[in-house]
Amino acid sequence: MNSNYSTYTQLLRKIADVQNAASLLNWDQETYMPAKSATFRAQQLSTLAGIAHELSTSKEMEEVLNALANDTSLSEKEKRNVKQSLKNFKDHKKYTTEFVKELSQTISETFQAWHKAKENNDFASYAPHLEKLIGLKRKEAELLGYEAHPYDALLDQYEPGAKTADLEKLFADVREQLVAFVKQIAAKPQNEDTFMYLHYEKQKQWDLGIDLLKQMGYDFEAGRQDLSSHPFTTNFSCEDVRVTTRINENDLNEMIWSCIHEGGHALYEQGLLPSEYGLPSGEYISLGIHESQSRLWENNVGRSLNYWKANFPLMQQYFPEQLKNRTVEDFYKAMNIVKPSLIRTSADELTYHFHVLIRFEIEKALIEGKLAVKDLPAYWNAKYKEYLGIEVPNDTQGVLQDIHWSHGSLGYFPTYSLGSFYAAQFFAKAGLEIPNLATEIEKGNMQPLLSWLREKVHRHGKYYTAEELCVELTGEKLNFKYFMDYAKAKYGYLYGL
Amino acid sequence: MNSNYSTYTQLLRKIADVQNAASLLNWDQETYMPAKSATFRAQQLSTLAGIAHELSTSKEMEEVLNALANDTSLSEKEKRNVKQSLKNFKDHKKYTTEFVKELSQTISETFQAWHKAKENNDFASYAPHLEKLIGLKRKEAELLGYEAHPYDALLDQYEPGAKTADLEKLFADVREQLVAFVKQIAAKPQNEDTFMYLHYEKQKQWDLGIDLLKQMGYDFEAGRQDLSSHPFTTNFSCEDVRVTTRINENDLNEMIWSCIHEGGHALYEQGLLPSEYGLPSGEYISLGIHESQSRLWENNVGRSLNYWKANFPLMQQYFPEQLKNRTVEDFYKAMNIVKPSLIRTSADELTYHFHVLIRFEIEKALIEGKLAVKDLPAYWNAKYKEYLGIEVPNDTQGVLQDIHWSHGSLGYFPTYSLGSFYAAQFFAKAGLEIPNLATEIEKGNMQPLLSWLREKVHRHGKYYTAEELCVELTGEKLNFKYFMDYAKAKYGYLYGL
Repeated sequence: MNSNYSTYTQLLRKIADVQNAASLLNWDQETYMPAKSATFRAQQLSTLAGIAHELSTSKEMEEVLNALANDTSLSEKEKRNVKQSLKNFKDHKKYTTEFVKELSQTISETFQAWHKAKENNDFASYAPHLEKLIGLKRKEAELLGYEAHPYDALLDQYEPGAKTADLEKLFADVREQLVAFVKQIAAKPQNEDTFMYLHYEKQKQWDLGIDLLKQMGYDFEAGRQDLSSHPFTTNFSCEDVRVTTRINENDLNEMIWSCIHEGGHALYEQGLLPSEYGLPSGEYISLGIHESQSRLWENNVGRSLNYWKANFPLMQQYFPEQLKNRTVEDFYKAMNIVKPSLIRTSADELTYHFHVLIRFEIEKALIEGKLAVKDLPAYWNAKYKEYLGIEVPNDTQGVLQDIHWSHGSLGYFPTYSLGSFYAAQFFAKAGLEIPNLATEIEKGNMQPLLSWLREKVHRHGKYYTAEELCVELTGEKLNFKYFMDYAKAKYGYLYGL
Repeated sequence: MNSNYSTYTQLLRKIADVQNAASLLNWDQETYMPAKSATFRAQQLSTLAGIAHELSTSKEMEEVLNALANDTSLSEKEKRNVKQSLKNFKDHKKYTTEFVKELSQTISETFQAWHKAKENNDFASYAPHLEKLIGLKRKEAELLGYEAHPYDALLDQYEPGAKTADLEKLFADVREQLVAFVKQIAAKPQNEDTFMYLHYEKQKQWDLGIDLLKQMGYDFEAGRQDLSSHPFTTNFSCEDVRVTTRINENDLNEMIWSCIHEGGHALYEQGLLPSEYGLPSGEYISLGIHESQSRLWENNVGRSLNYWKANFPLMQQYFPEQLKNRTVEDFYKAMNIVKPSLIRTSADELTYHFHVLIRFEIEKALIEGKLAVKDLPAYWNAKYKEYLGIEVPNDTQGVLQDIHWSHGSLGYFPTYSLGSFYAAQFFAKAGLEIPNLATEIEKGNMQPLLSWLREKVHRHGKYYTAEELCVELTGEKLNFKYFMDYAKAKYGYLYGL
């Protein structure tokens, strides 16, 4: 190996080691950490983040990246890694210490204010903090730079290469096509799902979740599942990828969808190559592509009739009383209720995108300076009325429901929708390329699908951009049509349209 | 605060953060880590150790320590912290990179060779590795420097300030007084303990262990207990101190003594002051003093009749069948069987010290060059015959039983005995200073004892050396008499001497 490239690899791996250690501290914080540990844990995480930042912006890193930047002897993969790392390095360098401090301090204050405001339904007390934070995010966009729109700079942090103009077109489709379709559904009689809310014992739910993860191909020797109040996936290498779930004994949905969703994220991370540890080629592409993997398993696979033809009998064994006289068709209908609602995180897979659409429109308007923070609740409520047809009774269940803005995450929400739309497009292609995919799923054999995803998506790491991957895999850029086709076929059947 | 001292504090806290992160990675490795994670975990631990070493030996650290070394404006506590840190810094600096690499590589090879050799009872295959390692440890002693004896330099790593000459006197006492006393016991009829080996359900044992820890005053909001194959205590601050235990359903001893023993270690760490985080004043004094805390709780408290007068009824509630017709006296006798045996880790509290004595004599002889590695098994076996009166049937249960030497830990074993001897001396003093200590323990009230230990030992961190603490606390240096008095009173009664 080229000696500069070898130095570069070592530097990146050292940074990855520090970041992965921090990830374990975070995992522990959400699962097993005793209460009094919180203060020192926060300090330890901050120290590790500081060390990772120092290493990422070191003179040594700069020198080796500059030496490699024009090294024509590198392989294509190596060139792409270096290009990605150079971009990261330059982005890191754009932040001044003062700006990082001010942003971090403001986020901390905004987060605390949000917590209180949400508890007390008191947007007014939160507004000045959010206003300051939005100001800093606009400044951040200027620091980072952009070509067409300041929001591009923010988007790029979560979805590298994504452009505001493209999202505007995409969400215009959502607005036009999906809003109309959901209205059609709303005119039909609602399906029955009361049996999902009977009493389902915790231990049995846990065991069922483990069975589902194993069937998907999640490797329990390279990961584990634990409980946490908010389900998440984290990893410390591709050989240690952990998921968490939560269990509500009076709502079977929570455990099932969190297991399959997080399992989908985890399969992506477990499918990265150990040889690429710490390098861009060993990292996920973007949040949108990550979400495509969780949503593909959760929705396209997990909420399908075929999947439950394989698994409903197992579930009946776990819960014979609760599910007696219920058919797999009943269950299929119950898990696919479409109904506009207030809270994004518990929305169905169609109306979910209205929640994202509203946030996208708001974020863009805030960054453009066209919407003042003080006018946010009224704007929010009007949008919920317009797209979802519902009244927002208070800000706690409205504009204050999400944590993201208070963490300084602007440009994050769109990746949720991108994930679902990519998932639909990828899954349509999988159906064409994998022989008898539907039948294999119906038999409970997920291996063909997992192998296909491994081959087509996982093993490449960041070799491709999201757009390149999509073209490589499906022959075209992201196209909303696939999601609408999927939605129409599935919900047309379910609601007799 | 003095600005140099403030810089110094920040530097030490940064190092502590990195080391505590590494401790969490280690904890996870022993409790929850999936199998395939091992390779990257080892790499991550090595990276964190490297970063901690870089920070510990940095130019910045050197400058601030030199500036503080003669700063007369510091308080006495600050001066002692700086003095300790200067010693650490100088010790760190004595190691060359080549030496550290060679030692680390040799340890790794010796450890692997030991594992195989123990499995196959094949000392010969292990001997050349150990010989090389002993050579490096002798070199290490020269690097570190010493006044009277090269073994002093090694001892100092675990028991700062301890001297070979003092240990020789101490172990001469063990040889003369304890060997004779155990012979007296051996001449008496043995007590009955078969009921300790009935079937004791895992979950009930777990619950009992938690009860015992709570009663000791272990704070479950600043720690937790988990299972691991070898019980240990670890901490990431004094507000997150974790213990592990193991449970053998056919031997009640394992869980009980590991819980109380690790609980004793944990109470020391939980009793350090959060304000002193990362500083010597926030650290334990030595392994011997750490072990004094675990042994005090395990032996002086936990293996006493008073303690079980409080807890035997609770244990009978957990195990009514197994313990029916048994009295607290029966239990007291059963847990205090003295009987020479082959394996150190399962030895009783008296013959345990013969195991340590033998290792001390061997280590000293190895470092002095008076004993060749090839002669080790014969030497070991002869010593076991001499002090314990037993034949060693094979090297696996003999000279290969311990992991310590293969980890390069020479000078570690004596701290186990020091711990017990300090414990006896401290507990004798506690009995004089705490009103009605025996009665409080009999009532299950451990608070007076814990408060006394907090006040006298825990809160000081490394302010005192081990010797200073002992004098401060008991009015004299370590004196083996206290242990012998304790042993004679207790076992004289138990064996009718």
